[in-house]
Amino acid sequence: MSYGGRLTADAGASAGLVEVRRHNLALVLAHLRSSGARSRATIAAETGLTRSTVSSLVAELAERGLVAEGATARGGVGRPSQPVDLDGAHFFTVGAEVDLDHLAVTALDVRAEVVAERWVPLDAGALRATAVLGRLAGLVGEVTAQLRRSGRELVGITLAVPGLVEQPTGRVLSAPNLGWADIDVVDVVRGLLDEPACPLLIDNEANLAARAEVSTGDRVGVRDLVLLTGGIGVGAGVVAGGHLLRGVHGFAGEVGHMQLDPGGQPCGCGRRGCWETQVGLNALLAAAADEGDAVRDPALDVRRRLETLAARAEDGDARTLEALERTAGWLGAGAGVLVNLFNPELLVLGGYFAVLGRWLADPVAAALPARVFAPRSGGCRVEPSTLGYSAAARGGALEALSRIFADPTAVAVRSSPPTRPAPVPSGAPA
Amino acid sequence: MSYGGRLTADAGASAGLVEVRRHNLALVLAHLRSSGARSRATIAAETGLTRSTVSSLVAELAERGLVAEGATARGGVGRPSQPVDLDGAHFFTVGAEVDLDHLAVTALDVRAEVVAERWVPLDAGALRATAVLGRLAGLVGEVTAQLRRSGRELVGITLAVPGLVEQPTGRVLSAPNLGWADIDVVDVVRGLLDEPACPLLIDNEANLAARAEVSTGDRVGVRDLVLLTGGIGVGAGVVAGGHLLRGVHGFAGEVGHMQLDPGGQPCGCGRRGCWETQVGLNALLAAAADEGDAVRDPALDVRRRLETLAARAEDGDARTLEALERTAGWLGAGAGVLVNLFNPELLVLGGYFAVLGRWLADPVAAALPARVFAPRSGGCRVEPSTLGYSAAARGGALEALSRIFADPTAVAVRSSPPTRPAPVPSGAPA
Repeated sequence: MSYGGRLTADAGASAGLVEVRRHNLALVLAHLRSSGARSRATIAAETGLTRSTVSSLVAELAERGLVAEGATARGGVGRPSQPVDLDGAHFFTVGAEVDLDHLAVTALDVRAEVVAERWVPLDAGALRATAVLGRLAGLVGEVTAQLRRSGRELVGITLAVPGLVEQPTGRVLSAPNLGWADIDVVDVVRGLLDEPACPLLIDNEANLAARAEVSTGDRVGVRDLVLLTGGIGVGAGVVAGGHLLRGVHGFAGEVGHMQLDPGGQPCGCGRRGCWETQVGLNALLAAAADEGDAVRDPALDVRRRLETLAARAEDGDARTLEALERTAGWLGAGAGVLVNLFNPELLVLGGYFAVLGRWLADPVAAALPARVFAPRSGGCRVEPSTLGYSAAARGGALEALSRIFADPTAVAVRSSPPTRPAPVPSGAPA
Repeated sequence: MSYGGRLTADAGASAGLVEVRRHNLALVLAHLRSSGARSRATIAAETGLTRSTVSSLVAELAERGLVAEGATARGGVGRPSQPVDLDGAHFFTVGAEVDLDHLAVTALDVRAEVVAERWVPLDAGALRATAVLGRLAGLVGEVTAQLRRSGRELVGITLAVPGLVEQPTGRVLSAPNLGWADIDVVDVVRGLLDEPACPLLIDNEANLAARAEVSTGDRVGVRDLVLLTGGIGVGAGVVAGGHLLRGVHGFAGEVGHMQLDPGGQPCGCGRRGCWETQVGLNALLAAAADEGDAVRDPALDVRRRLETLAARAEDGDARTLEALERTAGWLGAGAGVLVNLFNPELLVLGGYFAVLGRWLADPVAAALPARVFAPRSGGCRVEPSTLGYSAAARGGALEALSRIFADPTAVAVRSSPPTRPAPVPSGAPA
């Protein structure tokens, strides 16, 4: 989420030259990402590297298919300046999410633009792990085949799961709502995909969704953010001081099983009064509708069910509004603990909390001052996510992209450098 | 808490040379701190810098009084190797803590060895802020005068307070147990001290105590640690991924006012059921003894009162043991939330929790598996602090030292370089 300053090397330090080169390639790539298309001269001025070094770095990045020269800038005198920009034409990464009620796949190009997406409702808890992962691998295969036809190469996949992911092993130790315990999901998915050379990572879905939040729109640059993902389970992804909070084995951010009410309802994890029993989707649905009601049918698309619920709330249905109020109350109670602990600039409500954000965000914000020790809730704002149900998949694709941005030499020099028409100098005969 | 790799510069990058030099001075200094006394040749081999660069850097650090050549290493052939080491003889930093029941001052030399200490019991809540800070400034003045007589120079002070410290302004927004609200403590203390040129910082006492924990003994290198400080109030200092967790305005780690029991006792902050009402020292003392009992007298030294309590527990006094068990139970409840959120490698019990650690640490560790979602409590161990009641003061002095380690040019080249006897080559006539 950040990049360091320039590194230069004297000729004697030859052992470090490869490292310095790699660092500087990453520096130029990250600068283009954060600052947009610009000329070699501007890049040189802004990074402190020499113009000749920048030219050489840009040439290598172009050979690797990561940057391209854009349209010729016009209007100046002398030789036209050709802005350099990230090139989205050659590579893509994939984020692939399993959640309790859906699968999601997002593919991004190097410019972090969505080039393919899939979203499939699925009652994952009713299926075996291999069946769920088979469906997910099928979606990834579909997207990959589609993008290969447009000449793009797959350079990384990150899987997102709602459970405890042990780092660095990547084993899913526990995802009780899915009924998963100690599964090497990466190994299973690798066996189902025909991509032996493609880097395959895995992370908790809330961690990846938080990464997507701080990489998107006006949240870029937010260094202290808590993202809550509302689904059957409840997760948190925490960015603290610009870094994703992981803990010693990758288990940080387990908010769903905070015990906020010692005398509360039994939880699927075997304990009582966990936050998930108060603000998980099933608690809301149970309060809002009787058992036979379609909004409670896990076989139906969760997005449609939430639309129905939102329509009832807009119509002023008392039971729906009461259920939302109750959810907002407990959401505020847990949010108070999190805001006291993390002092975030922003608390983002994701998943179903975002879909029903109109009834949840303001009550949570209003509840904070009574629960947060710091004045004015420590400066924390509460906002719904704008990324919808695809945040974790998007975060997964971003995570895979970040590997390329950290080390642009991770993608090979292309055998035939991309050919482009020579630029036509302004004023030359057409 | 970490330092980067070597930086080298080509001759053309003259604008960066000062920065590179400063970075490399810091690199050598940090290397000596983490690895101990060693020869220039060894430093060169271990840092990747050339021998001539290391010689020049060591010479400058010696001129600044930060390193010295140690005893001549014997036993080898050829010219004896003279190990270079941190020099504790010339500088010191001070950490000065206000707590509810005591003041503490710790002075450290550059080797992080304690060169002076003060500990004074004080019922700070019964005095006005300026009176408390006057006493604190007096202790700092005493220590400074003592160390100046031994030829040492004061190069930094950090104040530690049990309250909300807004960063980067350093204002103490709220310390309700002290009755402080929105006080510019740095400004007050600067006015009371006669040290206009000395850098004066301030931080929350638990943050500084956490810094001391991860800088001491076998906890050096622990990257994920939660320190709980038990006193009248309860604080947490969190180190996550090697960084102190601060939040957007410095308010992170406010555990004392986590609401763990919606129907609980009223808290000094105006809310109900805050963790402080369950595990703060006053809750323990109220459960353990009647009102007239000396252990509850805030005018008496808290260390003596805790010794009395410990003696009663060792004698098997039922009321004392029940009170400790109750405290351990609530300590485990809150610790469960923290371990779920931070997945620390280590939960350290500080302040009075450490003094009574024999009755608290094991029950808290035993309570975690039932409260923590990750298996085996996410790998978290629970240990009492070994730093006693001086952890925050020690952390403050370390914080001030870290400024020198980050930029060794912050201390001036000494007008008369330290004179030392010329080393006598082994075998030369004496």
